[in-house]
Amino acid sequence: MTSTAADPLPSWREGPAKAAILGFLARVSQEGSPDVIPLADRIAVVDNDGTLWPEQPLPFQAAFAFDELQRKLLTEPELTEDPMVRAALVGDLATLMAGEHFEGLLRIVALTHAGMTNHAFREAVETWLASATHPRFGRPYDALTYRPMQELLAHLRACGFKTYIVSGGGADFMRVWVERVYGIPPEQVVGSTARTTFQMREGVPVLTKTLDFLFVNDRDGKPVAIHQFIGRRPVFCCGNSDGDQAMLQYTTIANPLPSLGLIVHHTDGEREYAYDAVSKSTGQLVKALEEAPERGWLVVDMQSDWLEVFGAS
Amino acid sequence: MTSTAADPLPSWREGPAKAAILGFLARVSQEGSPDVIPLADRIAVVDNDGTLWPEQPLPFQAAFAFDELQRKLLTEPELTEDPMVRAALVGDLATLMAGEHFEGLLRIVALTHAGMTNHAFREAVETWLASATHPRFGRPYDALTYRPMQELLAHLRACGFKTYIVSGGGADFMRVWVERVYGIPPEQVVGSTARTTFQMREGVPVLTKTLDFLFVNDRDGKPVAIHQFIGRRPVFCCGNSDGDQAMLQYTTIANPLPSLGLIVHHTDGEREYAYDAVSKSTGQLVKALEEAPERGWLVVDMQSDWLEVFGAS
Repeated sequence: MTSTAADPLPSWREGPAKAAILGFLARVSQEGSPDVIPLADRIAVVDNDGTLWPEQPLPFQAAFAFDELQRKLLTEPELTEDPMVRAALVGDLATLMAGEHFEGLLRIVALTHAGMTNHAFREAVETWLASATHPRFGRPYDALTYRPMQELLAHLRACGFKTYIVSGGGADFMRVWVERVYGIPPEQVVGSTARTTFQMREGVPVLTKTLDFLFVNDRDGKPVAIHQFIGRRPVFCCGNSDGDQAMLQYTTIANPLPSLGLIVHHTDGEREYAYDAVSKSTGQLVKALEEAPERGWLVVDMQSDWLEVFGAS
Repeated sequence: MTSTAADPLPSWREGPAKAAILGFLARVSQEGSPDVIPLADRIAVVDNDGTLWPEQPLPFQAAFAFDELQRKLLTEPELTEDPMVRAALVGDLATLMAGEHFEGLLRIVALTHAGMTNHAFREAVETWLASATHPRFGRPYDALTYRPMQELLAHLRACGFKTYIVSGGGADFMRVWVERVYGIPPEQVVGSTARTTFQMREGVPVLTKTLDFLFVNDRDGKPVAIHQFIGRRPVFCCGNSDGDQAMLQYTTIANPLPSLGLIVHHTDGEREYAYDAVSKSTGQLVKALEEAPERGWLVVDMQSDWLEVFGAS
């Protein structure tokens, strides 16, 4: 941690949550501290939807998928025969979100995220981000990251942490913009994945997106993917829902190194959204919240702990 | 690149191969060079077996698997009913290596790499490395890395490259020792993988190795895994066999950035092994060698280009 008079977390209100974060990071990163964590082990894993940006009224990648679907229907009207496409068109989220892994939603993701080259997919995401705006806030989606969490990411890095996104969102979707938006390189994104294919096409290497071996990076999948992609246990974990409970457990329970788990609690219906047990989108938070006191996970109250939610537009 | 009078590649004989490597790395990393590659894009991918250490008379991980199998037979003698186990016991490599992805060998890997916790597996690998020695060279396996390649890895990093291993070997196997042996952290290892399971067992998080969703990181799988794990195209690629051809293509063909592909050619039967078209182990090199001149891939002749092969014991 660089010693400086400046407050690294100016958008956080002074109080126990801010003090606990600053205290932990100082304790594990300052030379001479008895609890210092070796640099190589300073691995932080942070969920994205609902932790770094909103997931209401829909996860933003679902908004992308619905917009892409509309665009696709212009040339492939027969897609409306698919019941999940019809559900998407009428905004029937209940149908799309049914099932443990949101199978209906994934069907729409499938129609809009496979069968094209990775290059074409990147361009579709960039085009969408440059034009689409959030229905409530009226800003581009990538202008809606939480300022307090951006400050936390920057402070983690200043304390020598390697910051990873570990999200149920698609790795290919996030990797288009994470470096620009969060300062996190694509190789530090662990997301849902399916296997691309490689071929030489007219003498040029081409990667094509498929749905084979779809891996949904949620719940127990998160520690599994952390092991597969990172290969060691994190010591800092942020999430906001029961989908993050397993990686909070993996980070903090019986870890031989000091560790901190943190839950962003959506309590601010005025500035953002208030939900936990009941969400019409993703992000249900019940079990992880129940487990938090026993584990010492820090529950951040958005309404009282954050002075600002979004940065200036 | 740090400007220094010291030779960063002292184990390489002066000649075209050494000059080409040093010239490329200077050209893409020196401030003010018109061909400088942005730091974030300096991604190097390097095969392991036959590129950083030998793969004769067997890939070293296969030697580990055979030794583990012997140990396992003490308590599970019924395993000898498996024809692939019998092939392993009599050293019948032809049977084990048959099939595009060495299915027989993978069966043995399966018996010795699944059904235990990741922690127990790590301990087995560490115990083996601390006791087993190579049948010809009489040294521990991890004392047999190629000194010229160790120097190249260090020089790549001095030039701002992030060095990744991209190997057909198991990620879990390599991650036990790569940091100590190559200075490469576990999160920069892309290898063959299967999915672990996560569970809370007696209140403690446990990862257990399985064979589900086995992914063999070889041939076309290499660019596929590079995309899945790293998410961008490398600009430097080293391999030694046809299993590396696809990642050499992916790195060097139609890449908008300057790139270099390098093939370690095993020509030194006296100090190491001489093989290309005919190998009794892995490492056949025919098609990639044919394609090298057209693509400008640099073929390193171990016998003439390397002053030393292994470091001091």
